Amino acid sequence: MVDLNKESLELHIKNNGKLAVCSKVPLKDGYDLSIAYTPGVAEPCRKIKDNADLSFEYTCRGNMVAIVSDGTRVLGLGDIGPAAAMPVMEGKAVLFKSFGDVDAVPICIDAKDPKVFIDMVQRLQPSLGGINLEDISSPKCYEIEDTLKKTCDIPIFHDDQHGTAIICCAALLGALRFVKKDLAEVKIVVNGCGAAGSAIGKLLHNLGAKNIIMLDSKGAIYEGREGSMDMAKAYLAKVTNTDKIKGDLGSVTKGADVLIGVSQPNVFTPEIISSMNQGIVFGLANPVPETSYEAAMAAGAAVAATGRSDAPNQVNNVCVFPGVFRGALDVRAKAITEEMKVAAVHAIADLIADEDLRQDYVVPSPFDNRVAPAVAAAVAKTAMELGIARVQKDPEEIRLNTAKRVGR
Amino acid sequence: MVDLNKESLELHIKNNGKLAVCSKVPLKDGYDLSIAYTPGVAEPCRKIKDNADLSFEYTCRGNMVAIVSDGTRVLGLGDIGPAAAMPVMEGKAVLFKSFGDVDAVPICIDAKDPKVFIDMVQRLQPSLGGINLEDISSPKCYEIEDTLKKTCDIPIFHDDQHGTAIICCAALLGALRFVKKDLAEVKIVVNGCGAAGSAIGKLLHNLGAKNIIMLDSKGAIYEGREGSMDMAKAYLAKVTNTDKIKGDLGSVTKGADVLIGVSQPNVFTPEIISSMNQGIVFGLANPVPETSYEAAMAAGAAVAATGRSDAPNQVNNVCVFPGVFRGALDVRAKAITEEMKVAAVHAIADLIADEDLRQDYVVPSPFDNRVAPAVAAAVAKTAMELGIARVQKDPEEIRLNTAKRVGR
Repeated sequence: MVDLNKESLELHIKNNGKLAVCSKVPLKDGYDLSIAYTPGVAEPCRKIKDNADLSFEYTCRGNMVAIVSDGTRVLGLGDIGPAAAMPVMEGKAVLFKSFGDVDAVPICIDAKDPKVFIDMVQRLQPSLGGINLEDISSPKCYEIEDTLKKTCDIPIFHDDQHGTAIICCAALLGALRFVKKDLAEVKIVVNGCGAAGSAIGKLLHNLGAKNIIMLDSKGAIYEGREGSMDMAKAYLAKVTNTDKIKGDLGSVTKGADVLIGVSQPNVFTPEIISSMNQGIVFGLANPVPETSYEAAMAAGAAVAATGRSDAPNQVNNVCVFPGVFRGALDVRAKAITEEMKVAAVHAIADLIADEDLRQDYVVPSPFDNRVAPAVAAAVAKTAMELGIARVQKDPEEIRLNTAKRVGR
Repeated sequence: MVDLNKESLELHIKNNGKLAVCSKVPLKDGYDLSIAYTPGVAEPCRKIKDNADLSFEYTCRGNMVAIVSDGTRVLGLGDIGPAAAMPVMEGKAVLFKSFGDVDAVPICIDAKDPKVFIDMVQRLQPSLGGINLEDISSPKCYEIEDTLKKTCDIPIFHDDQHGTAIICCAALLGALRFVKKDLAEVKIVVNGCGAAGSAIGKLLHNLGAKNIIMLDSKGAIYEGREGSMDMAKAYLAKVTNTDKIKGDLGSVTKGADVLIGVSQPNVFTPEIISSMNQGIVFGLANPVPETSYEAAMAAGAAVAATGRSDAPNQVNNVCVFPGVFRGALDVRAKAITEEMKVAAVHAIADLIADEDLRQDYVVPSPFDNRVAPAVAAAVAKTAMELGIARVQKDPEEIRLNTAKRVGR
């Protein structure tokens, strides 16, 4: 029986972490030094002084994303602080490099006050092409991401929200095609309205879903519900559950077509699943899902998925963030917008032709070589169409180039 | 005729910068992901939560130095800002990697206020094993470095100050041995009391020099001189020139044994040099020194040196910062102290045996493979002796390991 915790610890000890830097240029003699460093290096400095956008072309900035966290909501461990968050951020960085050829560095910030955190990230922009926010507790993650998106001119992306939402929605589109149901017609229940859940709800709405009910620990969310709501819930209370249906998970899910969990282990009982309308059931709680794949299928689900790698239909953000940033960086996009997220959803879903869909294959594997190139091309294309790309490139070239760069 | 500016620009354009990251661990399948990332990665996180120092062992932090600048005094270009400073910081990073196998990342901060800058660097500590401050204008660089040294528990090192001082003093020790003069007896004039000059003065004093006169644009520095002085000058006014000699460069240098310039081009005229007592003349202004090597020798210098790679006795910081941080990181030192700097000076100087010294060879070349290993071993040894090392290692092992790691 493999002990993943023990083997992970050994990996980290043996290698002293997982990330290193490397030089892209030779440094073997005085001449090499004089053009990589002084005096020759003054020239790119002068050019950038005259035109700051050239920093994306002349320095590592053009391919560099920071994985930024305050360590306040790390995996299932909660608020463990920035130093203890490092293995996760460093792991994310090597995934970015391996799956998207995006250079990424972990930056764990000792700052719990969101205003301090925001100020720091704004001031870090000159070295970076993009920022991936990670493992920051809600609801402050909403204020942080929203403020940074308004004030920065490089892409800001909270992967716990949007990476999860994008791959979840891509898997849902695959599942719906398989069971021949229409997104605009199905009744969708999302259990959990934290970072991931709220982003899923918002993206479903932007994709065209018309009948969504969000649940939090108090039950169904609707406009006018008693008690306060964070900014994400308040938005979803406006655009979802317009019939103001009340109730808990068990009652609200009766007859639903889709049930998505970003909540707690084991809360999707066989009774709940079998009360659905031949339900599509996604249990994305990590590492123990709301229902195992097997239990969901045994309870009568039409299609099931989890975040686990030891079951079919793994819903894994690694299908998203490398390609999203690859595409954004390639065209020097100033942001990652809702349109670009929607484009990423379709790019992933379209990788499986109707005839290739199976009950246990509604979403591409993280190791499917086509994913990052397709996502990068779609995201870049959309950025250019929106007029937020600093450079223009052929999306097909981006697809081919990404496949070559990643070359797994 | 090689145009270094043009060739440097081409290098930066062709490679889109000089630095990339790379993974130290495999990521080819689900198992690899499950120990490099979730769920296995929770284990090193838990261990670090219980003992924060383990972050140096389990993550890239243990080998990671940030090259941090606000872009306010970059090369000879002045205040060009953080984005335009990136090529220099990125160049420094690849030098760290190439010469010391130290992973280094450039962080150019958009913050001119030293208090904001200090606060940011303090909050960046959890991801880093050390901080190399670079290209920050004086006098704010003194406040920044001093405050960070007091408040951080990882090494803080302003290379423009101390890297320059260390290699300059190492070259001086070689020159003095060659001309058979004693550091404690010679009259030394340092022209320039900015970051580099003040650090040279302080280090000379700590090495045992007894007769030092510092000059700034107003002439000789002495305690009680009219007008205000920054904190570095005020300190040097106490410990140097206790005879309170007044005057300008020309008058003060008469009969001096040593003249060190960290000032402006061409100010060491033949008249000044020939007025010395068979002077050792170092012109370290960059890229045009206070005197060329040839002109100094023609004017009667006993030994001459500059920062230029196209002349003998190049005084180059690349002999210092990679080894200093290599040694500090290897023993997880909490700081880089004056004692460690003195140890680095002697480690470099001792690499040239008396019988191997020549008029045109008083300091090792940057490409001398023995330099970084010797510096790393000496710095680590001193840190352990001072009780500021988190781990104990055999200095000889550090020397051998550094030679192997760098393997140029």
